[in-house]
Amino acid sequence: MTGFADDQLSCDDFLGGRLRLFQPLTGYRAGVDPVFLAASVPAQPGQRVLELGCGAGAAILCLGRRVADLGLAGVEVQPSYAALARRNAVANDLALEIVDGDVAAMPVALRQRQFDHVIANPPYYRPGAHSSADDAGRAMALGEGTPLAVWVDAATRRLVHRGFLHMIVKADRLPDLLAACDSRLGSIEVLPLVPRAGRAAELVILRARKGGRAAFRLHHGLVLHEGTQHPGDRDHYVPEISRVQREAAALPWPEAR
Amino acid sequence: MTGFADDQLSCDDFLGGRLRLFQPLTGYRAGVDPVFLAASVPAQPGQRVLELGCGAGAAILCLGRRVADLGLAGVEVQPSYAALARRNAVANDLALEIVDGDVAAMPVALRQRQFDHVIANPPYYRPGAHSSADDAGRAMALGEGTPLAVWVDAATRRLVHRGFLHMIVKADRLPDLLAACDSRLGSIEVLPLVPRAGRAAELVILRARKGGRAAFRLHHGLVLHEGTQHPGDRDHYVPEISRVQREAAALPWPEAR
Repeated sequence: MTGFADDQLSCDDFLGGRLRLFQPLTGYRAGVDPVFLAASVPAQPGQRVLELGCGAGAAILCLGRRVADLGLAGVEVQPSYAALARRNAVANDLALEIVDGDVAAMPVALRQRQFDHVIANPPYYRPGAHSSADDAGRAMALGEGTPLAVWVDAATRRLVHRGFLHMIVKADRLPDLLAACDSRLGSIEVLPLVPRAGRAAELVILRARKGGRAAFRLHHGLVLHEGTQHPGDRDHYVPEISRVQREAAALPWPEAR
Repeated sequence: MTGFADDQLSCDDFLGGRLRLFQPLTGYRAGVDPVFLAASVPAQPGQRVLELGCGAGAAILCLGRRVADLGLAGVEVQPSYAALARRNAVANDLALEIVDGDVAAMPVALRQRQFDHVIANPPYYRPGAHSSADDAGRAMALGEGTPLAVWVDAATRRLVHRGFLHMIVKADRLPDLLAACDSRLGSIEVLPLVPRAGRAAELVILRARKGGRAAFRLHHGLVLHEGTQHPGDRDHYVPEISRVQREAAALPWPEAR
């Protein structure tokens, strides 16, 4: 049996309780990042969205909760997480097709299909840069089994012409992520997420468009928390970020101007 | 005669009049960018600094005006600009060694020397992306004769171990610039310069260290002008930027934290 037993799971609120996700207590656990990723996607009702490496489904289900009538699909290499994503979709009354498979060897079921949007929250830590994880699932979710270039290539292949790719990565991966974007992608925009005014970005969201031709844009960092210092043991989001995390609002993506 | 005649030149104030530079009326004219570049360099008295493609010397002379007792050198491929840089150094009573030569074929006089800092404000526009320039000097200064990777390689070779590279480029060149940084450089930091709060970056300053090993950092964009809208026909710098441009202050580079 590859699935998690119920006593290995927690059930956690996302989007102010609009979404409740079963997650492994000791494995990879979604935080704010998949919520930001989902909130960045300008998907319209009726469009098709694919998440690469969807884990328990946090990002793709957040997007499905915010935008009605999307065709949602995810690919996940770890069967236990794929099963959890299916369970989470049912529990939240969202239609989600999960395909078992590796981003680096796209399953046949997806190879002939294309999507208006592809999203990914790929593993964060470079080889050797993270402490060893006791949990094999967490290790695979956090480790770098698959280079960023493979993620970007897999995403690009699955996009329709003019389709959008959105990825969220730790800010220190930005050079690798940009290097992974080849000439099939254009109109690349980077939105830094800054914990507090004046601090370095911790996360960046990349938006790219298949066949896009606009020049690269680096947006002003979006500040997440109020104040310039950590106010004790509690983070206070600025209002527009609180609406993203707790009310399923879209991320205030800067206009092109 | 390769030099400019006096009636082809203007004499312009930089750093609130602390520096006065002869510049060709119709050629490449320095603006705020070399001032920002010079202000970003943490040079200490006694250190050696090389500017690649120094033009009439705006950046290297701004740095020499702010920090005393630097060993200043520049390499410039256009003899008329090299001559102007020499004239500007003398007129401002700063010692500056100018070597005629191409960044892509480093002059022998520089090949055996290394510097604590290398700075560059390379040509801005990608091939075909700029309108044709009537003036040959301006065309060469603005055009892309030399790929960014050649600039970065030339700079890296001229740096001592642990020496700093600083470059300023238009924000849309950031992916190319990062791609040009190979494993000899590390501890890369990018400081976006944002015209107004919430606007995309127009310029970015890259800091890299030869032999550096720290992870890439993307700083929060530094806002240049007050307000969110252009207040008519006049730009109002925020106070800390006004001090950089008009009082020869160092750029408030964010601390690592």
